Amino acid sequence: MAENKFSYRQLFDFSKAVFQKIGCSETDAELAVKVLLSADLRGIDSHGVARLSGYVRLHEVKRVNATPAIQVIHETPSTAVVDGDRGLGLVVAPWAMQVAIDKAKNVGTGWVSVQNSNHFGIAGYHAMMALDHDMIGIALTNASPLVAPTFSIERLLGTNPICVAIPAGDEPTFVADLATTTAANGKLEILQRKDETAPAGWIQDKEGNSITDPHALKTGGALLPLGSDREHGSHKGYALGAIVDIFSAVLSGANYGPWVPPFPAYVAMPDEQPGKGIGHFFGAMRIDAFRPAADFKMHMDKWIKRFRSAKTVEGQSRVLIPGDPEREMQAERMKNGIPVMSVVYDDLKSLGEKFEIPFF
Amino acid sequence: MAENKFSYRQLFDFSKAVFQKIGCSETDAELAVKVLLSADLRGIDSHGVARLSGYVRLHEVKRVNATPAIQVIHETPSTAVVDGDRGLGLVVAPWAMQVAIDKAKNVGTGWVSVQNSNHFGIAGYHAMMALDHDMIGIALTNASPLVAPTFSIERLLGTNPICVAIPAGDEPTFVADLATTTAANGKLEILQRKDETAPAGWIQDKEGNSITDPHALKTGGALLPLGSDREHGSHKGYALGAIVDIFSAVLSGANYGPWVPPFPAYVAMPDEQPGKGIGHFFGAMRIDAFRPAADFKMHMDKWIKRFRSAKTVEGQSRVLIPGDPEREMQAERMKNGIPVMSVVYDDLKSLGEKFEIPFF
Repeated sequence: MAENKFSYRQLFDFSKAVFQKIGCSETDAELAVKVLLSADLRGIDSHGVARLSGYVRLHEVKRVNATPAIQVIHETPSTAVVDGDRGLGLVVAPWAMQVAIDKAKNVGTGWVSVQNSNHFGIAGYHAMMALDHDMIGIALTNASPLVAPTFSIERLLGTNPICVAIPAGDEPTFVADLATTTAANGKLEILQRKDETAPAGWIQDKEGNSITDPHALKTGGALLPLGSDREHGSHKGYALGAIVDIFSAVLSGANYGPWVPPFPAYVAMPDEQPGKGIGHFFGAMRIDAFRPAADFKMHMDKWIKRFRSAKTVEGQSRVLIPGDPEREMQAERMKNGIPVMSVVYDDLKSLGEKFEIPFF
Repeated sequence: MAENKFSYRQLFDFSKAVFQKIGCSETDAELAVKVLLSADLRGIDSHGVARLSGYVRLHEVKRVNATPAIQVIHETPSTAVVDGDRGLGLVVAPWAMQVAIDKAKNVGTGWVSVQNSNHFGIAGYHAMMALDHDMIGIALTNASPLVAPTFSIERLLGTNPICVAIPAGDEPTFVADLATTTAANGKLEILQRKDETAPAGWIQDKEGNSITDPHALKTGGALLPLGSDREHGSHKGYALGAIVDIFSAVLSGANYGPWVPPFPAYVAMPDEQPGKGIGHFFGAMRIDAFRPAADFKMHMDKWIKRFRSAKTVEGQSRVLIPGDPEREMQAERMKNGIPVMSVVYDDLKSLGEKFEIPFF
């Protein structure tokens, strides 16, 4: 687990050059990198620069279009369906979220379902776009199937995250960004690299037995929905992941369930494609479509202060507000640099050589 | 656990007479009973006729207004805030959901946050109102604090349910109705009556230790958020419950967090009231605001068939679609009657004597 630290600026310039090399415009390349690195800044290392070469490979197999003509293909005053034209999700998603924000400006809320897209980085980036407009932001996406519904041995859902970002006043904003599984796949990847076992309740083997081997997904195992097992509410995590899948893909015309295309370009495509690409869903709600923003923020501050000052169980110093750990991580990494594990470092180095981009 | 069975009609007529005795109009009494008994039919016994006397007691202490002037106090084309005027949630909620549906007819979606209401029965009834209009329905509510956020020993959230109802074609509709806790409070009540222990991971004692005594809430314990503990994602269940609280109450001007009024009339009110009554949140999204309803339903049928036919773990005969158990229970109970436990039977009998309503 050797790692080096790089500044945000170093990783930004390098990644931008890579996206430009595959044909993105300078504007799109900058946006894609901003979204990508927001994951590294917020401590969700699995979704950041570690995936840069993955996006390049998707472009190489012609599953990513570097110059997409993103467009609205259906709309009402408060809704739209966006066709991402196989663009980088990192570019398609902010475009679609902006449509939701514009609609909210006009009629109070905006809701946009997206087809024909690719992986969009972390949901948090897109939902948080609403905050600057005094709006609540919502971002969902489906993803390739790694999760077994309750009682199933088949993997039929992705880790299908839900992000909700809510403005506050003097307090920092509330940002809940969560995979609808007990543990995100990125956590398994970390255990694999460390050669450690997973806690019971995170994964099952190919027969559906609880197992602690973090490599179990390579031999037919599956991630478990939030709740782990039926007795602890896994049917709820399964239902939440299903809702994300349906809003993102059945509403938009993207692929859903077991037919969502995989992120790794070397993994075979599903046998069937009932829709186009992967799907996302975005929402924006103007606070003052409900009550004056100043009133709302005053009460959010009161809410946050009360929860943050709750008495803690022994051994814990505080009750966290959703978004606290990520915000603190971002401040620390902007100041001290972003750690890059050696395996990712080597990957970036190869990209640099391949594209003749000067590497750190 | 002796129990008797009564027909839907018997319970309907009796409960309607009770609501009329406390001053509800015939129309409101019928609506309230329809909502109340939808819980019994769907097998959520804790939220049905077992609570009838609880609503009566709330009326007696003047926390429920039997003749509310429910009104929209703020709106945009896609949003509204409704003041429930301390009405029965069983009446206020369908009124507010209808506003959401009407707005969706006009601009594609409708979103309604409600203040000054009371407990609304099961979320499922209200969300399912959208289905007849080829809309997706969403219903959330906050509730009095029984749940400790991750690392907290204080109870700051209710079981704050989320319901999402989604139309299908030939297949039955998808209805996910879930408390954002590992187990609903109603399940604890059943264990208490049976004198059985709870599985680890459902509750904690007043110091925050995992405990299996289902009476622990009476001695300072708390229900745990979906996920049970930090390692299994309880911060996600906490975040979901928090989102429900904020959408239902901080957006509307209702009470939130630890200040939500308790359902039992004999429990003291919180020391402070930052808002009015309890809060709900409703959403309605017209399917054809995204794509033609027929296309959507065809793909929902495909989605449902694929999940329902998934290979199961040994010992399980099928993978369920959210809403399956409740729909099957409803069919069975409409046919064979609704079981009423002896303690509830005695409670209803007392109500009958008090109001001079002929009892079965």
